Amino acid sequence: MVAVNRLHDPLRRQFASDNYAGVHPEVLAALVEANGGHEKAYGYDAYTARLREVLTTHFGADTRAYPVLNGTGANVLALQALLPRWGAVVCAETAHINTDENGAPERVGGLKLLTVATPDGKLTPELVDRQAWGWGDEHRAQPGVVSITQTTELGTAYSVGEIRALADHAHGLGMRLHMDGARIANAAAYLDVPLGALTTDAGVDVLSLGATKNGVMFGEVVVVLQPDIAPGLEYLRKVDMQLASKLRFVSAQLLALFEADLWLRSAQHANAMAALLRAGVEPIDGVRLTQLTESNAVFAALAPGVADRLRQSYQFYDWSEGEVRWMCAFDTTPADVDGFVAALRAAVGAA
Amino acid sequence: MVAVNRLHDPLRRQFASDNYAGVHPEVLAALVEANGGHEKAYGYDAYTARLREVLTTHFGADTRAYPVLNGTGANVLALQALLPRWGAVVCAETAHINTDENGAPERVGGLKLLTVATPDGKLTPELVDRQAWGWGDEHRAQPGVVSITQTTELGTAYSVGEIRALADHAHGLGMRLHMDGARIANAAAYLDVPLGALTTDAGVDVLSLGATKNGVMFGEVVVVLQPDIAPGLEYLRKVDMQLASKLRFVSAQLLALFEADLWLRSAQHANAMAALLRAGVEPIDGVRLTQLTESNAVFAALAPGVADRLRQSYQFYDWSEGEVRWMCAFDTTPADVDGFVAALRAAVGAA
Amino acid sequence: MVAVNRLHDPLRRQFASDNYAGVHPEVLAALVEANGGHEKAYGYDAYTARLREVLTTHFGADTRAYPVLNGTGANVLALQALLPRWGAVVCAETAHINTDENGAPERVGGLKLLTVATPDGKLTPELVDRQAWGWGDEHRAQPGVVSITQTTELGTAYSVGEIRALADHAHGLGMRLHMDGARIANAAAYLDVPLGALTTDAGVDVLSLGATKNGVMFGEVVVVLQPDIAPGLEYLRKVDMQLASKLRFVSAQLLALFEADLWLRSAQHANAMAALLRAGVEPIDGVRLTQLTESNAVFAALAPGVADRLRQSYQFYDWSEGEVRWMCAFDTTPADVDGFVAALRAAVGAA
Amino acid sequence: MVAVNRLHDPLRRQFASDNYAGVHPEVLAALVEANGGHEKAYGYDAYTARLREVLTTHFGADTRAYPVLNGTGANVLALQALLPRWGAVVCAETAHINTDENGAPERVGGLKLLTVATPDGKLTPELVDRQAWGWGDEHRAQPGVVSITQTTELGTAYSVGEIRALADHAHGLGMRLHMDGARIANAAAYLDVPLGALTTDAGVDVLSLGATKNGVMFGEVVVVLQPDIAPGLEYLRKVDMQLASKLRFVSAQLLALFEADLWLRSAQHANAMAALLRAGVEPIDGVRLTQLTESNAVFAALAPGVADRLRQSYQFYDWSEGEVRWMCAFDTTPADVDGFVAALRAAVGAA
Repeated sequence: MVAVNRLHDPLRRQFASDNYAGVHPEVLAALVEANGGHEKAYGYDAYTARLREVLTTHFGADTRAYPVLNGTGANVLALQALLPRWGAVVCAETAHINTDENGAPERVGGLKLLTVATPDGKLTPELVDRQAWGWGDEHRAQPGVVSITQTTELGTAYSVGEIRALADHAHGLGMRLHMDGARIANAAAYLDVPLGALTTDAGVDVLSLGATKNGVMFGEVVVVLQPDIAPGLEYLRKVDMQLASKLRFVSAQLLALFEADLWLRSAQHANAMAALLRAGVEPIDGVRLTQLTESNAVFAALAPGVADRLRQSYQFYDWSEGEVRWMCAFDTTPADVDGFVAALRAAVGAA
Repeated sequence: MVAVNRLHDPLRRQFASDNYAGVHPEVLAALVEANGGHEKAYGYDAYTARLREVLTTHFGADTRAYPVLNGTGANVLALQALLPRWGAVVCAETAHINTDENGAPERVGGLKLLTVATPDGKLTPELVDRQAWGWGDEHRAQPGVVSITQTTELGTAYSVGEIRALADHAHGLGMRLHMDGARIANAAAYLDVPLGALTTDAGVDVLSLGATKNGVMFGEVVVVLQPDIAPGLEYLRKVDMQLASKLRFVSAQLLALFEADLWLRSAQHANAMAALLRAGVEPIDGVRLTQLTESNAVFAALAPGVADRLRQSYQFYDWSEGEVRWMCAFDTTPADVDGFVAALRAAVGAA
Repeated sequence: MVAVNRLHDPLRRQFASDNYAGVHPEVLAALVEANGGHEKAYGYDAYTARLREVLTTHFGADTRAYPVLNGTGANVLALQALLPRWGAVVCAETAHINTDENGAPERVGGLKLLTVATPDGKLTPELVDRQAWGWGDEHRAQPGVVSITQTTELGTAYSVGEIRALADHAHGLGMRLHMDGARIANAAAYLDVPLGALTTDAGVDVLSLGATKNGVMFGEVVVVLQPDIAPGLEYLRKVDMQLASKLRFVSAQLLALFEADLWLRSAQHANAMAALLRAGVEPIDGVRLTQLTESNAVFAALAPGVADRLRQSYQFYDWSEGEVRWMCAFDTTPADVDGFVAALRAAVGAA
Repeated sequence: MVAVNRLHDPLRRQFASDNYAGVHPEVLAALVEANGGHEKAYGYDAYTARLREVLTTHFGADTRAYPVLNGTGANVLALQALLPRWGAVVCAETAHINTDENGAPERVGGLKLLTVATPDGKLTPELVDRQAWGWGDEHRAQPGVVSITQTTELGTAYSVGEIRALADHAHGLGMRLHMDGARIANAAAYLDVPLGALTTDAGVDVLSLGATKNGVMFGEVVVVLQPDIAPGLEYLRKVDMQLASKLRFVSAQLLALFEADLWLRSAQHANAMAALLRAGVEPIDGVRLTQLTESNAVFAALAPGVADRLRQSYQFYDWSEGEVRWMCAFDTTPADVDGFVAALRAAVGAA
């Protein structure tokens, strides 16, 4: 018997990213249950079939679901499936597809991104119009999709009404609405609405349904919400190297998340920890909160030197010049938050 | 607490593919150990660091290792890293990269494959020469890599000497040798040699190190075996959407496989089951074995109707007109083999 | 006034390729006529509009025509327009798209080529079937187009009936038929049929209409022959960098070729010179003709040393081991042929 | 003899674009001289060899020159040759590569563009720094090239010192400097400096040398200015479908332009006409000039309705909301300018 030594401290939590967290125990249990015996590979297994059914309860009977390996893969697949070879995507400058995917949408997807500056990571119909033009001009990449992130990369959430307005606007222009839902669960928890209300019912066409940031080991889903669009996803998934051979283990995890309410409980908890964190740091001198906290992230500007001192105790991300991001996860505890706030206080006081 | 119902029979095994099998218990245990707490994402974790060390014990001190999500991803990354934008790959017509990846090498990798017909899935220096020519002619995709599969898609294994000859030949032409090692463990087990003898020591430049077909849930590794080649793999991995955020869980599985001898035990077992299967079916009338059994696969031509009848009891793949493939896995039991042989006998006898 | 010195001998002709020839005087005259003044760029000019009309007289009222810069561009555009991102093209191993375009169909077009060996460069329904299978299997690039070259790279011509059979077969499989018509004029001249008989009427879906090899300076046309297929070519042409800004000068040349019968006269002449050449070389000892001469090319196997000696007087291409190609052009003269035959005789006799 | 009817008015000139103009008579004469006889195809001809020599007199002895078919092709080739598969280009938002090439740099080149807003189309070291960061972070496309346009898309010219500063800055960051020189002749004419002073001597690494907008029928050149960079351009040119078979006719045109001073005379003339135009329109009420006139373009904001009325007499481009672009060419005459100014006056007066 091989003994893999544990190489990390399973009790230590950071505020860097929700993907620093591990796997929710219920998800791990589902993996164990799905193991053993032989099941058809590449998605022809019972878990994937069941997942498809479960997702229709969230997103509607016309839903088609394609589990994939990671979030970049989900986004590129979704956008390719919605666009011809000459298509373009209108998105926020801060969109993950623009800033954090090393050009995968362009290089693998063959897509052009038409970006718009925003104050809070959120597009509006007016902002969309800055790039949604030029149809029929062969010199311009043809805008065909509006892509929004829920919650945004800045932790803000689109309301149902805001999404509806964007969907109506996009559709009025002959475009489609894609949602990068890497943290859609946090938005649903924050807004206290079902997943379907934020997507299918609000007019979203295709969703990248996030799970990894919400307690899954790996796996996301491209969910096509409207009938008769986005053909060929089963082929694109293979072409783009996003088809797992032992797909039952992706689907089993997603089942654990979405069959009952684990997705919601986990997101509610992460959001609550972020709210606690915000409440804890807000009063501290030298800390200025720079974005609303509408999910599991807190953005703050710090006085010079503070971030460096705080980093001796905790990992977190620099966001922009002088601005940092603190992120809570499904497994962040109130004690973790208390420890962090205390460390921040000390870092500020040491100035 | 969510109860995910088990949706499959954990005691039922097929002969369709080693990726119909699940996860080896030791691998699952490693996943559990790697869980909990927060670890850096995207490969900056302790498990990935340890995996890199472990792989140098197999492949040499100069080894650089990049864990990825699946085998197609490993192959495309490896080939891109070895080739300029105008490069071409010489490979067997039956190579997985040519037949089973829906053009990912071409479409995602921007590569041209120059294929050669072979009787047994194996290239030789002479066969390579059928496509390795035309350097300096800008009209021809420039051959830069020879890619071989170990074991081949037909279950045959390259000997150390055969690999050495191909490496020398490729290098003499200014080309590199890539090995798609989706089943390299089965080859090492069959030939009774260490992994390094089949790769680094034999002159292979870059290896797609397979694990999923040998008891892992998901995950393969691009292993660069020679210094100063294949730059930029860390970027390509992200561009090609093969970078897992919670990479510790890929690396922990691979550690479980390669830190001690699980990789070898599992492959030996699967090979032994295939040998048992071969011995069992060989005497049966109407069964003609079409390839050597040098790993965990048995290829056979069946009398008309036999495959259909057998399929009522067991899943397996049609390979070519009238030819089938039967594959054993790390968890195939002698009783499974006996059951299959009996079913085959019945299917033949029912004619 | 700048004097560009003539740097070549305008009376010297070779047998290397029809693209070694220059520009037919009538085409040059058309360029002069199209010059002067300002015309809309990028194809919104009067010459392009007129070209579209003229091509409908050859190919039918539903024809849509997209002038492009070169033959590789025409082929890649045509195939992209006919295929989704997961599509594949069935073609002969010897097809120009496979052998002479440095992977542009794969790298720029994102296409997979599924090749078939042929004795004479010609596909048949039976040969197509070797690769036309696997629909619905996401692991296999999905065959969507059969591509044939008229005349083939080996100088042979498809008859109207042969094309019809391929079109019917392709359509029966849900595929489209593309013709690389780089030398379609030579085929029409040889078979003594109109261009439409070889294309639209025979069921071809999209044609790469060649002109450069038939006396034009530069310029080919992607011609869509059937309604309601191949959308977005105007965008693809720009994306693939095949849209000339001063497009009137492409269209004016093509008008010179196709408005009256220059295309036919030039091709007939080139074919006649090839027939003369064949008749001249056939009786020579040590010369074995290896393909039928159904256009402007003669293929021959030569005794050792002959090619090298002949090359001291004339340029021509080696085709395969021991085999050469001799090509006539619109401007090859009987005296050129006589000179070449005499030189070949001398080269043979010198052995 | 075919008579191609002239389909346009050779005396009518517009102010829409310098690519609405035709071919300079000296260029046309060069095409005639280069015609006749057989010359090697694909760039192995005497005209291309001579062009390479001529360009070294402008750009230095280390210059390597690759004639291509159009400007988008030149840009994509140049950028690909300077960047690995994970590379990014820092450029102005208004850059032609970003706005007018339908994503060819992304889709064909596999490149990511990192854009910066500018007031006048010109980058500065400070503006470059807004995007030139993040090296070593695999999530970010790696900035490797700064690309500038000379003259810019807004008609402004970089001084030698400004280029030098950008080159030094880029090189200090380990990046390369690319110049899209679609109108570099106009810049050289405006600044009264040799072409080499704006490029090689100022530290530019690779130049897209423009010719079509300066009186050539078709053809541009990728010019590599520094030794030991940008390998494989001969292959990339074929892959990207930018290699003309009868390349002598591209090179002959470029020889006519660059062997003596036609490039300069034509650009000086176009610039002079733009200066005349500016002087003519500046005093008119309801016309506000929006950019400096440092080449052959005049940008103006017009009172409502004026553009529409003026368009009844002349063609020109809308640039942005309420702003138009008027462009002069090598063949624009003072009388053309007078006519246009008069028409503008009338259009304003009719309000």
